[in-house]
Amino acid sequence: MTKFGEHWEQSLRDLAAKAGAAAVQDANIQGKDIEAMYIGNMSGGRFIGQEHIGALAADSLGLNPIPATRVEAACASGGLAFRQAYLSIAGGAFDMVVAGGVEKMTDVLTGQATTTLGGAADQEWETFFGATFPSLYALMAKRHMHDYGTTEEQLAKVSVKNHANGAKNPYAQFQRELSLETVMNSSYVAEPLKLLDCSPITDGAAAVILASEEKAKQITDNPIWIKASAQASDTLALHTRQSLTGLAATRTAARKAYEQAKIKPGDLDLAEVHDCFTIAELMAIEDLGITEKGMSGKHVDQGEFTLDSRLPINTSGGLKSCGHPVGATGIKQIAELTWQLRGQAGKRQVNGAEIGLAHNVGGSGATVSVHILSR
Amino acid sequence: MTKFGEHWEQSLRDLAAKAGAAAVQDANIQGKDIEAMYIGNMSGGRFIGQEHIGALAADSLGLNPIPATRVEAACASGGLAFRQAYLSIAGGAFDMVVAGGVEKMTDVLTGQATTTLGGAADQEWETFFGATFPSLYALMAKRHMHDYGTTEEQLAKVSVKNHANGAKNPYAQFQRELSLETVMNSSYVAEPLKLLDCSPITDGAAAVILASEEKAKQITDNPIWIKASAQASDTLALHTRQSLTGLAATRTAARKAYEQAKIKPGDLDLAEVHDCFTIAELMAIEDLGITEKGMSGKHVDQGEFTLDSRLPINTSGGLKSCGHPVGATGIKQIAELTWQLRGQAGKRQVNGAEIGLAHNVGGSGATVSVHILSR
Repeated sequence: MTKFGEHWEQSLRDLAAKAGAAAVQDANIQGKDIEAMYIGNMSGGRFIGQEHIGALAADSLGLNPIPATRVEAACASGGLAFRQAYLSIAGGAFDMVVAGGVEKMTDVLTGQATTTLGGAADQEWETFFGATFPSLYALMAKRHMHDYGTTEEQLAKVSVKNHANGAKNPYAQFQRELSLETVMNSSYVAEPLKLLDCSPITDGAAAVILASEEKAKQITDNPIWIKASAQASDTLALHTRQSLTGLAATRTAARKAYEQAKIKPGDLDLAEVHDCFTIAELMAIEDLGITEKGMSGKHVDQGEFTLDSRLPINTSGGLKSCGHPVGATGIKQIAELTWQLRGQAGKRQVNGAEIGLAHNVGGSGATVSVHILSR
Repeated sequence: MTKFGEHWEQSLRDLAAKAGAAAVQDANIQGKDIEAMYIGNMSGGRFIGQEHIGALAADSLGLNPIPATRVEAACASGGLAFRQAYLSIAGGAFDMVVAGGVEKMTDVLTGQATTTLGGAADQEWETFFGATFPSLYALMAKRHMHDYGTTEEQLAKVSVKNHANGAKNPYAQFQRELSLETVMNSSYVAEPLKLLDCSPITDGAAAVILASEEKAKQITDNPIWIKASAQASDTLALHTRQSLTGLAATRTAARKAYEQAKIKPGDLDLAEVHDCFTIAELMAIEDLGITEKGMSGKHVDQGEFTLDSRLPINTSGGLKSCGHPVGATGIKQIAELTWQLRGQAGKRQVNGAEIGLAHNVGGSGATVSVHILSR
């Protein structure tokens, strides 16, 4: 992956090429070994006036004429690109495929970025009337606090934890720790969510090489295995859902993924979950079955999910600290799990990690992908 | 499919729901029988401020929580959505999948639509400097005329033929015939391409149901079979290609498709090809191996490819007369072939059609899909 951050001097195609080349080098293969490409990108059209991102990425990587397909599901675009690559190999269409994700978000004014991201929610029923993503997740946070007694301090602790991890990640946008006081003193964006509860605007790209079992064994002695791939949908708008305190699509996808992998949440050694806002991480912890419903905040209070805990969450720094180049995030999660499961995660290494989960959310939860990897 | 045209009173979700419901009814199944959705859409973000089109379509059709994935490859988005649906069934992931395509293009000013469509070309190297799609295809037309003696009248005859077909298609945007004189007298958009050489701005949606062989036999006595599915990429910008008189990606995809289907171009009974501009149809005819290189115009002069010829092309009216709601076009081509192969194409029926080909192009040829269907 590229470092996540503000890359004023690099275009979307530069970032895609850089991540792709890094993946090819890491896998010790050549470009000509790759048979197809899937790439996640949310909104190249609105951010930089460029659609047709699959062909563009294949072009910039010199991979023509292989099939190159862009997949879009808002912030879950990367997770779905990974899943399509997986399905295409599992189904026998190809033996080696690159899955990538890229977003170039800083070439527009901040207000435009917020408006563009609003395209992930329901334009007719939500964003047209002024709702932004912080406000949608603020509604969920308010209800979670009302129903379960979750506190703003618990939300802030998620940010503190993820920044502690991101400080150890050379690819992270914000490589610095934050104190609880700093987070709590940051200004409200949409009450109860403060500036430091929110993931940032980011440029970046990530790519991974997927191969069939036979091919993987030929090119590496330590392949990372895909034990499960699941995806689910929910209504685009919040007002038609039965509950605001969790994401039904996460629960559906997680149930399928655990069944496929034949594991339980307790078997996980680490997880990368979609913390676009701190409340999103708490809901993910519950919807993934890691804690009981409504209890995630209390577990955070007890110091769980930190790097030295039983189940570290968002060792990369998460979307909050590592950054959130929308289409790339789902692939970055896979890259982070891969490094962790190989024992290559440096200062943020989870000792002896064997099983990891990646959870990628589109918009306010209308699309969710869950993948489980193992060494 | 919906009628293609200007649907001021219908939103993108209305169009998607209408086409999806029509497909479910045609297949004599229920929504709950569908296990996954792939949907092609080029630029919902720029046309209507809405990304996350997969979840939106699943939502509007009441198909939650099935996996719903948007695929984008500019004007080939529909073809690629169909191909992903095919691969997911062929690979054993699902038994029944809906593939759709939708575009809502008329909610912006015409200039904005042209700019948005420019996102299918190379933003950094082409559209930033003022190139529009008519001008890019005009370059190709000029070179084809220079190298092979192709004439403006031959181009115009493609438009006349496609309008003659579209006049017989109740789903077409322009259900009227055009005389050669009318086409020739229309004003230049980008010389040598005239207004009536160009496909229009269109709202519309199309959907098809794909099923495994076993499932298809359960639900219908006359399934249409997918004999081949191929996809190829080329450079995004024209200036890096070896030739301007054809599309290498069409030739690559066509070669693979004919191999898969074990047929030759001469075995085709009809074809839907991507005539975004009349020159695009002539190049497609050559790149698909239907005529020798440079000879398509002369064959058109001889009256070939009309509805009563040996190999009718664009019986739907093509993009020119049926309309071109970008993401929906690739699926419309499949719908047209299906009706033709079933013998349900009404006044435009090709008698005894057994094998048909669909050719869908993204942008100026950076993505191409070719599918071959048979009864």
